[in-house]
Amino acid sequence: MTSREPIEAVLDGYRTAVSAKDVDAFVALYDEDVRVFDMWGRWSYDGADEWRQMATEWFRSLGSDQVAVELHDVDTVIGDGVAAAHALVTFRGLSADGEELRAIDNRLTWALRQTREGAWKIVHEHTSVPIDIETSRPIPRE
Amino acid sequence: MTSREPIEAVLDGYRTAVSAKDVDAFVALYDEDVRVFDMWGRWSYDGADEWRQMATEWFRSLGSDQVAVELHDVDTVIGDGVAAAHALVTFRGLSADGEELRAIDNRLTWALRQTREGAWKIVHEHTSVPIDIETSRPIPRE
Repeated sequence: MTSREPIEAVLDGYRTAVSAKDVDAFVALYDEDVRVFDMWGRWSYDGADEWRQMATEWFRSLGSDQVAVELHDVDTVIGDGVAAAHALVTFRGLSADGEELRAIDNRLTWALRQTREGAWKIVHEHTSVPIDIETSRPIPRE
Repeated sequence: MTSREPIEAVLDGYRTAVSAKDVDAFVALYDEDVRVFDMWGRWSYDGADEWRQMATEWFRSLGSDQVAVELHDVDTVIGDGVAAAHALVTFRGLSADGEELRAIDNRLTWALRQTREGAWKIVHEHTSVPIDIETSRPIPRE
């Protein structure tokens, strides 16, 4: 078992990059060949370029708002060279003066790989909400 | 890099267990402490007992129908002791005489851990479909 610290550093880096709306810092968390199964809009993002475009549009769409990322029930499994993390996430939309405008809950899974230089990069991300089988609508978190 | 074979054996085991509606073979693929973010009905299944109950109900609900699992675009990342796999999945509902009744597409992510005895067990599963941001409805696969 390897230390959890490097994976927690990636989680911290994610929070910080989203809060700062810093596209470069955000994309630097991911592997060049990342594949993302995102909750919104499409089945898959393939490669860091497509994911950079998503982040650019997301952060631009916020205007002067900010997004605070809260992680709950984080669980990690860390091997030699490969790790996975999963958690419940709350994204809180905040106005420029810190007022909460909206909040959305999400389930998050990451697979990470350690580079030759020792850094951990996200090679796969999966976010979603569960679907009600009767209504085909997302189920709000309890 | 470790061989992909053991992970592909788990994928094969999943297909076989679902096709046979074999609850024991299905649950044997998972770690005791598995956490599943399933596409349907609830935010999380925690532990093999909750997951066994889901499988029991799922297989019983099929009556004489069967489910064929097809995996597409499988990608694996395998380290020493920990691995991850992600894929697009088609679940095909078949009548007892093999006629296709329905089909549903899914995105699947697994995190796996190798036990002391060398077996690979699924410690985390995440399945979903993406959501249309305008309608809040699942997006059909292209």
